Amino acid sequence: MRLRKNTLLEKEKQREDSGFGTNATSTTARLINQEGNFNVKKVGQSFEAKLNLYHKLITMSWLKFAIVSLGFYLTVNLSFGIVYYLIGIENLMGVDKSHGLSDFWEAFFFSSQTMTTVGYGRVSPVGYITNIIASVEAFLGLLSFSILTGLLYGRFSRPVPRILYSQKAIIAPYLDINGLMVRMANEKSNQLINVEASMIFSRNEVIDGVVKRKYYGLDLERNKVKFFAMSWTLVHPITEKSVLYGETLESLKASDAEILVTIEGINDTFADYLHSRKSYLFNEIEIGKKFSPMLLESTGDTYLLDLEKLSDTETAVLNVLKIED
Amino acid sequence: MRLRKNTLLEKEKQREDSGFGTNATSTTARLINQEGNFNVKKVGQSFEAKLNLYHKLITMSWLKFAIVSLGFYLTVNLSFGIVYYLIGIENLMGVDKSHGLSDFWEAFFFSSQTMTTVGYGRVSPVGYITNIIASVEAFLGLLSFSILTGLLYGRFSRPVPRILYSQKAIIAPYLDINGLMVRMANEKSNQLINVEASMIFSRNEVIDGVVKRKYYGLDLERNKVKFFAMSWTLVHPITEKSVLYGETLESLKASDAEILVTIEGINDTFADYLHSRKSYLFNEIEIGKKFSPMLLESTGDTYLLDLEKLSDTETAVLNVLKIED
Amino acid sequence: MRLRKNTLLEKEKQREDSGFGTNATSTTARLINQEGNFNVKKVGQSFEAKLNLYHKLITMSWLKFAIVSLGFYLTVNLSFGIVYYLIGIENLMGVDKSHGLSDFWEAFFFSSQTMTTVGYGRVSPVGYITNIIASVEAFLGLLSFSILTGLLYGRFSRPVPRILYSQKAIIAPYLDINGLMVRMANEKSNQLINVEASMIFSRNEVIDGVVKRKYYGLDLERNKVKFFAMSWTLVHPITEKSVLYGETLESLKASDAEILVTIEGINDTFADYLHSRKSYLFNEIEIGKKFSPMLLESTGDTYLLDLEKLSDTETAVLNVLKIED
Amino acid sequence: MRLRKNTLLEKEKQREDSGFGTNATSTTARLINQEGNFNVKKVGQSFEAKLNLYHKLITMSWLKFAIVSLGFYLTVNLSFGIVYYLIGIENLMGVDKSHGLSDFWEAFFFSSQTMTTVGYGRVSPVGYITNIIASVEAFLGLLSFSILTGLLYGRFSRPVPRILYSQKAIIAPYLDINGLMVRMANEKSNQLINVEASMIFSRNEVIDGVVKRKYYGLDLERNKVKFFAMSWTLVHPITEKSVLYGETLESLKASDAEILVTIEGINDTFADYLHSRKSYLFNEIEIGKKFSPMLLESTGDTYLLDLEKLSDTETAVLNVLKIED
Repeated sequence: MRLRKNTLLEKEKQREDSGFGTNATSTTARLINQEGNFNVKKVGQSFEAKLNLYHKLITMSWLKFAIVSLGFYLTVNLSFGIVYYLIGIENLMGVDKSHGLSDFWEAFFFSSQTMTTVGYGRVSPVGYITNIIASVEAFLGLLSFSILTGLLYGRFSRPVPRILYSQKAIIAPYLDINGLMVRMANEKSNQLINVEASMIFSRNEVIDGVVKRKYYGLDLERNKVKFFAMSWTLVHPITEKSVLYGETLESLKASDAEILVTIEGINDTFADYLHSRKSYLFNEIEIGKKFSPMLLESTGDTYLLDLEKLSDTETAVLNVLKIED
Repeated sequence: MRLRKNTLLEKEKQREDSGFGTNATSTTARLINQEGNFNVKKVGQSFEAKLNLYHKLITMSWLKFAIVSLGFYLTVNLSFGIVYYLIGIENLMGVDKSHGLSDFWEAFFFSSQTMTTVGYGRVSPVGYITNIIASVEAFLGLLSFSILTGLLYGRFSRPVPRILYSQKAIIAPYLDINGLMVRMANEKSNQLINVEASMIFSRNEVIDGVVKRKYYGLDLERNKVKFFAMSWTLVHPITEKSVLYGETLESLKASDAEILVTIEGINDTFADYLHSRKSYLFNEIEIGKKFSPMLLESTGDTYLLDLEKLSDTETAVLNVLKIED
Repeated sequence: MRLRKNTLLEKEKQREDSGFGTNATSTTARLINQEGNFNVKKVGQSFEAKLNLYHKLITMSWLKFAIVSLGFYLTVNLSFGIVYYLIGIENLMGVDKSHGLSDFWEAFFFSSQTMTTVGYGRVSPVGYITNIIASVEAFLGLLSFSILTGLLYGRFSRPVPRILYSQKAIIAPYLDINGLMVRMANEKSNQLINVEASMIFSRNEVIDGVVKRKYYGLDLERNKVKFFAMSWTLVHPITEKSVLYGETLESLKASDAEILVTIEGINDTFADYLHSRKSYLFNEIEIGKKFSPMLLESTGDTYLLDLEKLSDTETAVLNVLKIED
Repeated sequence: MRLRKNTLLEKEKQREDSGFGTNATSTTARLINQEGNFNVKKVGQSFEAKLNLYHKLITMSWLKFAIVSLGFYLTVNLSFGIVYYLIGIENLMGVDKSHGLSDFWEAFFFSSQTMTTVGYGRVSPVGYITNIIASVEAFLGLLSFSILTGLLYGRFSRPVPRILYSQKAIIAPYLDINGLMVRMANEKSNQLINVEASMIFSRNEVIDGVVKRKYYGLDLERNKVKFFAMSWTLVHPITEKSVLYGETLESLKASDAEILVTIEGINDTFADYLHSRKSYLFNEIEIGKKFSPMLLESTGDTYLLDLEKLSDTETAVLNVLKIED
């Protein structure tokens, strides 16, 4: 009795977990999409968590960010412009029909000159209320531009890894067995150091008549390198112990199999931590191929790594695993 | 003799310590409140350590921060306004009763236009002293706004984890034994990676007639996951070796028991390190429950995780631990 | 022969090294001063390494920083003021004797209004050269203020640990042996997590007639805690294997002994990495004392940690180590 | 059969990999140049990856950065100046031939006063179009200066390690064998803590008639130190297991041998992570030397480390490795 208990616990403890759990679910949803994002929608988030303003403003496209920024600038100027206009244009000294602007637009441009702290002074506030509003606008302008410019620089300087992955994961001959392989390269010219990678395999399994999604960490030939200067071919050796042992294209498809590759390391220019991931669905796995070389023959004293060959493969004869006597 | 000595030392070394020590104290004070803050007041801090200005300004509520900011702006303008006024309003060229402002308020608004570097120029300094003061104010204005805007952006961009914890810790059946369980979810939509968790159990123990508070690290089924995309149920298996083995609701209450859960990981958008913690007092522990599923049945290709079900439990029959023969 | 070789290598490898090496030196210089700084002067540094401008500007005292900042502001304004003056005051429109300023000071204050981008406009540039200079000054003003304000905020927000150390290291009874102890507390109210400590012992040893300084890592009862909420007493158990075994106050003095304590951890508000160190010279070691409790009896539900008692000790009878039969 | 398979896999797994792979290449190109940069050119990078704007702007020389900044400022002002000029100089109030500037240059300097937000106001916009353009320029000026000043401060505060390496790697007597040694020092006065080093050896090997470049991690006497206050001599003991065992200057040259040294640690002032590397080609290796001491005899209480002696060596008699019976 005692023995069984400990065995169960030990077994559970040794199971490598990637944080997905083993959820009872008959959905064939792909947990991770090709770009490595998770297909998980959280229901019941608080407004603040849903909004996640900073995260959104940093990660949105540059076009969207430009629109948001300009929209913000316009809105603030319109709002303050209206306020100045309503208080009375006579409180803006220097407004004069001869300047070719209607009263409202004088107020609007005065607002923009205040908010940006340009303050030409052709138009300037007189009277208490307008002076107070202008004083507040200059204050808020400085504060809101600090957010805007902080975001801009944050976006500009954010370390975005550009790891390229081969389009397909392949099962290729490896030593005298076979291996599941994925090839990666760092598209940027800067160096990544202390780089670690992992491979996670998931598939549906029928347990007691219920379809459950199971996740397995795949043992790698090598999961850490000091530098990532060239390409790196991740290899999971398919030994008899491997969960992939005996799998075929058909069985992978039937079990809705998926492979998640992650890589993390340190950018040596800024000492930033970088993380990237990529998912391969069963139909992005090819069996009986091997990767073609990426290094070009070079005559000079520089190695030439051809990134366009990252996904190039050649047909290869798989090793037949010998049965032990 | 020698043997006993080494045994004592080895035993002490193996005791897992969480940094709380084993303080002789008869207080029933809860060391950690529910939000995970420590109920420790430090007596004799230096003024600087007590003030901890930056820390306070970053972590205070937004309302308080707005008040502090505006108060600062107002105070500086008032102070410099008074100075300009005392030096003599005749040193501010352009001040004119026709502008609807008393002399003092002209000085005040001139100060605000100088500090924010708007500098409309309707009013401008003449004479040595006023020019020197205005020059200093513009300088100090730039410096103090850098602190203010730095704080603002720092607050805006500070990575605050939003880890949700189940309201109760439960003792539920686990494999063929039972386990102490806590369920967590990341409320935000961004990913946490390389996530580690720990559980610390503390209770009063009577040692040689003195009540002492003792702290124990609880062994977890799994204390590290690669991703925290779904929910995560932390499990401490209550084996015979566990300090919780044989505990009842009554004994937990009697010993003023408390459980501290900590979690840390890396936010994959900004590579920030995040840390969160939560405490459960004895009356927040339930025995004989299990957590209800949080994943909703979904028809699309997206997993739906219902955060509102995080604390949902169902009654469960605990395993009876078999006595070994 | 082979055996001896391997033994030497293995022995050398196992020797714990702190990076000080074992330098042949007859100096009795203290390598680390009480504040934990190294008494090492590097000869032959390049000018750039010696200057280390950013490092100096961030770590200098606030008074010095204020003087440097103001000096910089004054110098730039003087320089540009002189340039404007030399080009000819007639190129600064609006300069007028009636404003109570000499021509040079008009140029000086115009410079400060340009550099801070206040630009009142009472005085404004006309003519090519003055306009070009003013345009360059505004540009350089923005750039140099970004350095100044960046430094200011960097100084303001730099995480400076305030770890308090007991004034003396003591040798106190510990279990049934004795231990070298140092007590530490975090003076600030924020939390340090994942805290690690180390102790390094150094002394002069006569090897082949030459005085050499030797460094030893001291094994600690516990070198890592999850939280540093209370005080932490570092204990090096003086077993028979300890390099301190059998040392007396006289032998410590004779060998010019010194103890270096280091502590590092993560500030949980900002996830900053913090490091602090402290050195004890032989005359800051006391034998036969123990630390008095720092926790005050409290009636409320808050623990009271009295920082002023950090260095308080009481006389204690050391354990006599029994000889093994 | 089974046995052989496992052996191959295990062997491959144990091979230390530095991320360079074992590329079939007959080139004698040096993979790493003396400064530690990789001689790898990536073909087929996307425009964005090739540009890598932020990286370039941060790491370019100060002279280049000054030129780029000024060029940017000039270009923007010229562009907006032309726009204002084309819209019509009559929309810039205050332009007057008496100010000694042609119409275009009035527009140009107005642009610079707008972009820097100085806004003297002698010239100010009237009419819709010019006001809109000026409003946009002030907005863009604030945004682009945030990038410029961010870069400036980023460059100023970027932690650049200044690790000095001995000019030559030497093979010197070490204990009763010999060792490959490299000496390093931190030129700066700040402290590096938790410092780790590694040595990688690479050479051409003829495998099945094909020249392949092979990489080997070299085992170090010590690869981690707590502090890097003095100099540090990295030692790879050349035991019989070492890949360097039996190598001569001729064999190193024939195989185009190269040694890569890397060092990483934490700067204790700012808690920055630092990384530095250095490469030694076969002709930068000397056999039968030892490093001369760098510590000067000092009379005061400060250690004097003479950085200029970092590369100083003396002739040394190597140990003759005894043959084991």
